[in-house]
Amino acid sequence: MSELKENVKLPIRPLHQGISVADMEASIAWYERMFGYQVVSDAYVPQLPARIVFMELGDWSIELFHVDGSASLPNDRRIPNLDIRTHGTKHVAYLVDDIVSLMDDLKAKGVDVAMDIFPMAGDKVAFIRDNTGNLIELIQKPTSGQPA
Amino acid sequence: MSELKENVKLPIRPLHQGISVADMEASIAWYERMFGYQVVSDAYVPQLPARIVFMELGDWSIELFHVDGSASLPNDRRIPNLDIRTHGTKHVAYLVDDIVSLMDDLKAKGVDVAMDIFPMAGDKVAFIRDNTGNLIELIQKPTSGQPA
Repeated sequence: MSELKENVKLPIRPLHQGISVADMEASIAWYERMFGYQVVSDAYVPQLPARIVFMELGDWSIELFHVDGSASLPNDRRIPNLDIRTHGTKHVAYLVDDIVSLMDDLKAKGVDVAMDIFPMAGDKVAFIRDNTGNLIELIQKPTSGQPA
Repeated sequence: MSELKENVKLPIRPLHQGISVADMEASIAWYERMFGYQVVSDAYVPQLPARIVFMELGDWSIELFHVDGSASLPNDRRIPNLDIRTHGTKHVAYLVDDIVSLMDDLKAKGVDVAMDIFPMAGDKVAFIRDNTGNLIELIQKPTSGQPA
């Protein structure tokens, strides 16, 4: 598929994911410690009003929002099979090279595991939660780790 | 940043976004018509229970879920500035080359515009809704459309 991406002009390419968080400092620390995201901007936008922090990992970013007095994550959004029972944008899934090593590393760092590694249609899949409770899916494909 | 992506091994790379939808056939048609996504798998998973359809655009996919009797999108999730007042994963933002032409094309196809093109920190930004009401952000950067 890398070949396709180089040769075909796509109308849209994923750039970032928005995440509303409960504790901005804790979230910055979590994404830095778990995956190596780095803060690239940090601004207060009074019109919203919200503090917005962008953190980058390669050419992908997360946009963290903190709004004073914001509501907690609905409990059903913490469970993959319950989350999908309400319409809406859900988890983002990430490709990883070696899910066993990555999960070992994340667990050593204290990650909250929603669903530990299980097989799915030839892939190996796991769900974790960030420090706000937001679901993140990790997927190792049979071709993961091979040169593009 | 393309150079970075080729030379640095990232622990995670974005692969797909999950979206729970109200009407699977209408959503498949919407993502195909608006952006050219193509269905690559379509399965019913009785354990959830849900119909799951993957649609691909280059090396990025969306995972559409349909669960019988699922709840409607909360109304505040239709409005960018209200959506962030509840913790959770929010919109995915996409990089585009020419947001004026793209929005003209999407409007001609009947897209639901949540926030029409506005300037933000040197970028041009818009928010649209898919046929379920889910927010999608589109961003043209000053460097959009230039060779990587």
